[in-house]
Amino acid sequence: MIETPYLLFLGDAPDGLAAKVAQGIKDWRPEYAIGQFRLEGCKADLGLPDLSIAEAVDKGVKTLVIGVANRGGIISPSWKSVLIEALEAGLDLASGLHNLLRNEPDLAEKAKELGRTLHDVRIPSVQYPIANGKKRTGKRMLAVGTDCSVGKMYTALCVEKAMREKGMKATFRATGQTGILVTGEGVPLDAVIADFMAGSIEYLTPDNEPDHWDLIEGQGSLFHASYSGVTMALVHGGQPDALVLCHVPNRPHMRGLPDYQLPSLEALRDLALQVARIVNPACEVVGISLNTYGMSDDEALAICRETEERMGLPTVDPFRHGAERLADALAAL
Amino acid sequence: MIETPYLLFLGDAPDGLAAKVAQGIKDWRPEYAIGQFRLEGCKADLGLPDLSIAEAVDKGVKTLVIGVANRGGIISPSWKSVLIEALEAGLDLASGLHNLLRNEPDLAEKAKELGRTLHDVRIPSVQYPIANGKKRTGKRMLAVGTDCSVGKMYTALCVEKAMREKGMKATFRATGQTGILVTGEGVPLDAVIADFMAGSIEYLTPDNEPDHWDLIEGQGSLFHASYSGVTMALVHGGQPDALVLCHVPNRPHMRGLPDYQLPSLEALRDLALQVARIVNPACEVVGISLNTYGMSDDEALAICRETEERMGLPTVDPFRHGAERLADALAAL
Repeated sequence: MIETPYLLFLGDAPDGLAAKVAQGIKDWRPEYAIGQFRLEGCKADLGLPDLSIAEAVDKGVKTLVIGVANRGGIISPSWKSVLIEALEAGLDLASGLHNLLRNEPDLAEKAKELGRTLHDVRIPSVQYPIANGKKRTGKRMLAVGTDCSVGKMYTALCVEKAMREKGMKATFRATGQTGILVTGEGVPLDAVIADFMAGSIEYLTPDNEPDHWDLIEGQGSLFHASYSGVTMALVHGGQPDALVLCHVPNRPHMRGLPDYQLPSLEALRDLALQVARIVNPACEVVGISLNTYGMSDDEALAICRETEERMGLPTVDPFRHGAERLADALAAL
Repeated sequence: MIETPYLLFLGDAPDGLAAKVAQGIKDWRPEYAIGQFRLEGCKADLGLPDLSIAEAVDKGVKTLVIGVANRGGIISPSWKSVLIEALEAGLDLASGLHNLLRNEPDLAEKAKELGRTLHDVRIPSVQYPIANGKKRTGKRMLAVGTDCSVGKMYTALCVEKAMREKGMKATFRATGQTGILVTGEGVPLDAVIADFMAGSIEYLTPDNEPDHWDLIEGQGSLFHASYSGVTMALVHGGQPDALVLCHVPNRPHMRGLPDYQLPSLEALRDLALQVARIVNPACEVVGISLNTYGMSDDEALAICRETEERMGLPTVDPFRHGAERLADALAAL
């Protein structure tokens, strides 16, 4: 578990998109986002106070989070002096980059010398169990997608927000690097060893109060030739009571697979439900989340209405319209 | 790739079952099984010549294979002097045990000093790619099961034998530790990192001659809550043209999951085919392999006939009846 609150390191991000991890933290856990740290030439700006390391420490910051991704996921040499300064000032470091903090000899040595923690959320820090498939108490929702990168994390986070606003007990459960940095904990499922995938999700979503909802971030897609095994483990380890179908209308092909079309929402509903009911016969599909990025408000509303009519399920773009209707559908289960 | 032929090390195996890896090599690659090595008190006997290390070297043996599994998968201290002697005599070592040869300091040091290879087939030795889902040339069969440990490896090996006897081009593709030791190569799928599972199977079954069959060993089951993700990756990475359904009649519950019943063969057929057709729309179920261990010959024949009639598919226990009918069904595709 990563200690909060955070100083968000944006480095020399060439644009706002490169700082999407930091943006996610600011959007979803604003109480963790005390300030930002930008190097010369940084083109991203979260609208947070620019703090020096010393100022951040004064404000109670515990961890510097690398909130920027660059090509290749490397730790840029130009960042090093700031990272070392942060360690010296008493901060831990957290990163979701492919190249690990712990594999940088200067950082590893300094952290060891000073007793600081380097959180590399790209890889697991826990030895997960083999899944036992036993029924757990509490309720679970899983976001499943027609494809990768269709908004499963945002959907689960939006539903958490909507549920909490209704006074419901709800916890977003991160299964990817960005989600882990946003919330400070979770399972980096794509880096787990095959035999332990489903077990890692049982570990992530243990017994809970009967009226508590775990809102599990989805990964991949049952229809994605590269990652479907990861998704399958998530469905069987998560044992969801409810599924929300996530989709991007009009995407030309499966992400990274030019030879594959996206499945229909009907096909996703049928396969995901069939598979989920192996471990939870009561599982239901409760709603649909469309990612309408790039559409006008009218277009977005129109496609949600059309989909809702066709599928007979509440359909929203939760980022644009809020997730109240999805939360209501879950509450009604 | 492990150098052949082998000396099969049976250690102090308490019974024949403990030596099932060695038995598998002797059954399926008799040309690799030059001799056996047994310690005092060993209760297993493959009926092979008992050879000293020096005799094995004289007969051209290249690798000593640990063909015995003990509780906990450890490398017994009582084995050490033989393993060291083998390294000194010029042999490599191969093991599928959970505890790795390379983590035994005495073995690692001796192997390094002498330039020998320690093959730990429990874990991958290759950095596998992410699957690209592209259509490959050649044909592929995958054995899928209603459960774990229903005879998927034996089915694929039996089909390979039957096809080769018919003069067809066929290669068994190992996806588990025993299969890898039997054939000398393969992918230890249960130890692969989640993101690379499907890619490892694409790597294992590359482009081939149009009339060549890869016979892919199955793992887990789409219906097994602990391992279904592994199976899903196998279906999507393998892109099978044909599926053989594997089943043990009358098993009381899913292996390791007392709360779960086995699915019917109909349910397996429907789900496996639906999932396989995402990556290969032409995929067909061609036959059924029943594991009739413990039944009389009459009982075994009766259940195969009954199943064949019900499912409309050639049904055999390939270990008892041979796999000619499955090979014929594949040849007819």
